[in-house]
Amino acid sequence: MGEGALVPETRVLAVASHVVSGYVGNKIAVFSLQSLGCDVAALNTVQFSNHTGYRQWTGSRVSAQEITDLYQGLKQSYLDDFDMMLSGYVPGAQALEAVGQIGQELKRKAKSKPGSFFWVLDPVMGDNGKLYVAPDVVPVYKSLVHHADLVLPNQFEAELLSEVPITDMTSLGRALQVMHERYGIPHIVITSVSLPHPDHPVSSLSVVGSTMTSDRRARAFKIVFPAIDCYFSGTGDMFAALMVVRMREAVHSSSNSNHGHQQQDGGLTGREAWVSDDSVDAVDLPLAKAAEKVLASMHEVLTQTAEKIAETVKKARAEATDNAAVVDGEGATSATAEEAAKAEEKRMHLVRSKAAELRLVRHLDNLRFPKVEFRAMRL
Amino acid sequence: MGEGALVPETRVLAVASHVVSGYVGNKIAVFSLQSLGCDVAALNTVQFSNHTGYRQWTGSRVSAQEITDLYQGLKQSYLDDFDMMLSGYVPGAQALEAVGQIGQELKRKAKSKPGSFFWVLDPVMGDNGKLYVAPDVVPVYKSLVHHADLVLPNQFEAELLSEVPITDMTSLGRALQVMHERYGIPHIVITSVSLPHPDHPVSSLSVVGSTMTSDRRARAFKIVFPAIDCYFSGTGDMFAALMVVRMREAVHSSSNSNHGHQQQDGGLTGREAWVSDDSVDAVDLPLAKAAEKVLASMHEVLTQTAEKIAETVKKARAEATDNAAVVDGEGATSATAEEAAKAEEKRMHLVRSKAAELRLVRHLDNLRFPKVEFRAMRL
Repeated sequence: MGEGALVPETRVLAVASHVVSGYVGNKIAVFSLQSLGCDVAALNTVQFSNHTGYRQWTGSRVSAQEITDLYQGLKQSYLDDFDMMLSGYVPGAQALEAVGQIGQELKRKAKSKPGSFFWVLDPVMGDNGKLYVAPDVVPVYKSLVHHADLVLPNQFEAELLSEVPITDMTSLGRALQVMHERYGIPHIVITSVSLPHPDHPVSSLSVVGSTMTSDRRARAFKIVFPAIDCYFSGTGDMFAALMVVRMREAVHSSSNSNHGHQQQDGGLTGREAWVSDDSVDAVDLPLAKAAEKVLASMHEVLTQTAEKIAETVKKARAEATDNAAVVDGEGATSATAEEAAKAEEKRMHLVRSKAAELRLVRHLDNLRFPKVEFRAMRL
Repeated sequence: MGEGALVPETRVLAVASHVVSGYVGNKIAVFSLQSLGCDVAALNTVQFSNHTGYRQWTGSRVSAQEITDLYQGLKQSYLDDFDMMLSGYVPGAQALEAVGQIGQELKRKAKSKPGSFFWVLDPVMGDNGKLYVAPDVVPVYKSLVHHADLVLPNQFEAELLSEVPITDMTSLGRALQVMHERYGIPHIVITSVSLPHPDHPVSSLSVVGSTMTSDRRARAFKIVFPAIDCYFSGTGDMFAALMVVRMREAVHSSSNSNHGHQQQDGGLTGREAWVSDDSVDAVDLPLAKAAEKVLASMHEVLTQTAEKIAETVKKARAEATDNAAVVDGEGATSATAEEAAKAEEKRMHLVRSKAAELRLVRHLDNLRFPKVEFRAMRL
């Protein structure tokens, strides 16, 4: 029964952060990949108590040297036989370079067998116009995009990589084109696009993706979906992990369905970077099919999470009112009242942050059996 | 549909080792817990490239101070609201003491709400008569068992804790009794028991468990299951993680089924350490019900893994023969032949180790929907 939900056997190297509590980075990526049947090697770049959105955390980073050592450890025991790699948040330029070396080495190793290794790079640099990594990380990402097969920038990161200011769907299309040309990057998905467009109903978002043609022309699609008015962490990491699985699955099923035609190259799986023939339309790309499934899973999990947030915050507010009543009753001075209000604000932020952790583990079937509702359209 | 496979909402703190590649420690425990619906905080005590059974690895340990810091980080953000804790392999006495402090603090915090926190302690010390931790770890475990709710020693570890040499089922029963009395530990499961006994067909193993009565008498059951002639790593860790989930589930369903009777204490879930009434027979204990389900899941996953090992090793041997033919053809001297044989032996060990990694992610439904075949019997 459920075995039908499994992708082809896939060994993935996932490099990202680890948090003890909550769901960002590898903590969400590893489970997403595993629950769909991937054998995941999880190389953690940090171990923090919780994600930084809480505004306080403990823990430590893994150095560039340790990252390299862990990879050497895999190599010496024949454990570097990866089909795919997913790299997410890496703290600092040096550590990112170490991760980049791993990606490049795996690409080189696979050179003689086209399509046997696929690198999904999530260039985690910032969001909403603000950089949240050190500035020297940006050029390192620019040097690495050349070697990746699929990049997943958000709108701001796409601006950084393309150096095209994105203000509408036209400039967004131009940014895609520039990235294909400049970096030779075969597949791009720009996540959480929020731009005025006739097709966009109010309070909707879209992802825009493209697989380049043989002459590096963009072949772009977009998928519009309803926005959920909530701040979540880890959505980008979940999106990236699910794209790994669903891309592999879509490419395999496209290769299988073409069996009758007996393509010269044995299908997409045996082709460098899994790039479809020029004749394939944007909305029929494996990339588009993959993104449709990923968004279906995500929309369901986010909806469930949002419901829980509302419930938890309401309960916590009621407790806060009770506490305030007690303070008033004790005849607090205005100074302690101000302190109490500040402490309460902090407490509510922490409560909301915890409630906003993605409720993935309670909705495994949404990951495994997504019901596609939002379809790709030509851009 | 699959939501029926979920346990009640459970927040678990899992403290154990992390390996990048493969499935031992937290790498297998976290997935096992999550796939059954637990919200898991994963505190990793090491990050190694692979488990030590490969005989070579890279990576580093997390210090006692870092373990304490990570827990403080959880506390300051109200993330220490755990229903259960699972502690597995911890490197060294100091780090183990730090973990022990966490367990004891969580127990103290829950004191006013009986049954609201349950600590499963896997006293990882050694196997088959051999210690694989430093000798100073043993007294630390002995001091911690007093505070735990369920311990899961293997036969050798049960000897260390009870100081009773276990040579047959009678002495094993005595060891259980001693542990209940000396440590006041309410629940014990001794894993992988291999002892001559009339009920045991050739090539079978058993687990033996007991929940003490109100006067600390053992109430013992055993479950016999067929042994699989293969060396696996991570089985103890998988067993422990699944026991966490299934114990919680069994206690909840026993409380619910007693609703009609309106027990004075509101059922097992509200009772200190979830200890059943003295009138409950050994084979009807939640501990026995839990162990039955766990063994069902494990037997299926191990069977699938064993099949894959046989296949992989056969293929690797064929490659080895091809390689040997090439070496012979080149007229190797006996010295290089000896070296080549040694290198080949090492390669085969590594190949076998990798093939023996538990194939959990490909058999998720065996975790979620176990078919119980092996039933508990009174000891």
